[in-house]
Amino acid sequence: MRIGITGSGQLGWMMILEGRKLGVEFNVAGESPNDPASRIADSFFPYTRMNDFVDSSDFVTFEFEHVPGDVIQYAMDQGKLFPSMESVVLKRDRSREKKFFTDHGIPTAKYYVSDDFTDAIEKSKAFSKSVVKQCFNGYDGKGQALVENGAVLSGSAEGKCIVEEFIDYDFEASIICYRDRHGRVGSFLPSLNFNSFGILLYNESPVNDYGMREISEKLLSSLNYVGVMGIEFFIRNEKAMVNEFSPRVHNSGHHTLMGSSVSQFEQHVRILSDLPTVNPVLYRPSGIVNIIGKMPTNIFDILKGKEAKPYIYGKAERRRRKIGHVNVTAETIDDLHSLIVEIKEGIYGKTLESNLSINPHSSS
Amino acid sequence: MRIGITGSGQLGWMMILEGRKLGVEFNVAGESPNDPASRIADSFFPYTRMNDFVDSSDFVTFEFEHVPGDVIQYAMDQGKLFPSMESVVLKRDRSREKKFFTDHGIPTAKYYVSDDFTDAIEKSKAFSKSVVKQCFNGYDGKGQALVENGAVLSGSAEGKCIVEEFIDYDFEASIICYRDRHGRVGSFLPSLNFNSFGILLYNESPVNDYGMREISEKLLSSLNYVGVMGIEFFIRNEKAMVNEFSPRVHNSGHHTLMGSSVSQFEQHVRILSDLPTVNPVLYRPSGIVNIIGKMPTNIFDILKGKEAKPYIYGKAERRRRKIGHVNVTAETIDDLHSLIVEIKEGIYGKTLESNLSINPHSSS
Repeated sequence: MRIGITGSGQLGWMMILEGRKLGVEFNVAGESPNDPASRIADSFFPYTRMNDFVDSSDFVTFEFEHVPGDVIQYAMDQGKLFPSMESVVLKRDRSREKKFFTDHGIPTAKYYVSDDFTDAIEKSKAFSKSVVKQCFNGYDGKGQALVENGAVLSGSAEGKCIVEEFIDYDFEASIICYRDRHGRVGSFLPSLNFNSFGILLYNESPVNDYGMREISEKLLSSLNYVGVMGIEFFIRNEKAMVNEFSPRVHNSGHHTLMGSSVSQFEQHVRILSDLPTVNPVLYRPSGIVNIIGKMPTNIFDILKGKEAKPYIYGKAERRRRKIGHVNVTAETIDDLHSLIVEIKEGIYGKTLESNLSINPHSSS
Repeated sequence: MRIGITGSGQLGWMMILEGRKLGVEFNVAGESPNDPASRIADSFFPYTRMNDFVDSSDFVTFEFEHVPGDVIQYAMDQGKLFPSMESVVLKRDRSREKKFFTDHGIPTAKYYVSDDFTDAIEKSKAFSKSVVKQCFNGYDGKGQALVENGAVLSGSAEGKCIVEEFIDYDFEASIICYRDRHGRVGSFLPSLNFNSFGILLYNESPVNDYGMREISEKLLSSLNYVGVMGIEFFIRNEKAMVNEFSPRVHNSGHHTLMGSSVSQFEQHVRILSDLPTVNPVLYRPSGIVNIIGKMPTNIFDILKGKEAKPYIYGKAERRRRKIGHVNVTAETIDDLHSLIVEIKEGIYGKTLESNLSINPHSSS
């Protein structure tokens, strides 16, 4: 069994680390043979050799969904692509994703579609406060603007946009869920996510469900989805609204690498390979702290003596870039939170802004 | 940081799987580039290129200690070898290992040394029942004979032997322990081991300590050991006696791959790399079932719906050969035992003898 992974970053890297135990081999198609997943793949293929990549793979999946459609067209034609193009196409244009949610009765913030930013600002007046998000190529908080009474408070967006009612949520949460090739759905216990400068900084699991599991099952089934999916939610007054989904393993599911009976990565590889999934048991409250921008030279000293360990992706340092994460477990959720905050302080100290913000001289 | 592993089997394979998350790279020196560890190494070296192997490694360790001394002499000369030769040399000759135990006050069965099997039988008369073990090249129950009142009941041995008083133990147990480069010792919770035909068939952790931790600390310190070590014990009347130790990660420590805060493999890589160890927390009762001789074609069906997952080493099938194992966790130790027995039955059914016994037509 050989799985082809499109994309060569840390998600593919962890898919390989977790999937090898099952006797599975891996091809990686990506930008560079020096990327994290490329370095440990059985074979690396540049995007210019996609047909060879697909031909030598039993199944093909994504770790990075923003690849040109023609690149994966051949995998689709061969019936080897999981998840299918449908979920990926929705991600190419935020307005299609939003429309899919509302068409299928999946709770999400009210929105309008605009052809450009100026029109978006105009439409935003329907809400007292709103978020304008560009439909194409926006991620990790890029291509978004916060607007109040027609005035841009922060950020910017380009081209076609959605204008979303600003949700004054109590907190953000997410669920890692999955659907196998036979239509069976399942999920890991959800996590509470803490973002900073539009990027996930840390998360903690478990958190109450607030309807996330039911919504995830509806979304998976509506899409005829096959594989692992991450869904981000806003939680307000104990109710969950979908913010967005990712048709792949997800950063907010990395906590499943420690303190769980199975990781999101192994589960995804199992589904692709048509092997039975493992029932996800959370042994103990678990979470992660992302390492973004810069790797502390004393990372192992920071974690010394703690119930914590790092995954170091082997990527060059760059502002706002995820270059590693720390897995953390603890006996109680309160202990977990204290430990995570302590580790976050150890990693960032006063450097959070310079590592994460788009413009390090602006206030957050 | 690049670690060189001498030996290319499953222990090195799991060391690499577990060590990569730390950003460590791996060289493997072994018989074949197609062996489990060789296939996923950053670089493979045949034993004929040991100097190159050592030169391109920051540190060198074993996953298989029965390599000729001259092969690792160069690593030793460079000060790169962990653990040191001392512990390995003891393993080359059982009589030296036994002498080391008794010299250092480490409880072990009474014994005599003989130059040949005939003399061993003669000396065995000092005990009503004894086990004669050849001093060189015996492992997994090979090169051993059970003797009662001077009569061989089963097995055989060659050359220099030790004659050990037969311990009518209540059960076998083992501990995975470690000592870092700064002399700090630690251990995982011990496991109860069940052997069949002289090979570990399954184990279950935790089991009571019975003095194993204290003995392990004494042995590690007496040897000035650096790295992870597995020690096997006989437990009789709630007291532990050392059977033997392995100067490396050990089959009875594979349960640390699931349900623990850190695995024996990651711990070993950390010690070699002079990174802080992780405090081993056993989240939940954990054990393994070894897959020996033959891989069931329905292994994933056997495990379906269970809190269990396999590690498939990618080795050719052969009687008595360990070609994989299954990790199992459960909420209670009783549940763990039931689940392990169920999985063992699923894997072997009536084939245990044909997969494990040296002579499949003899009775066990």
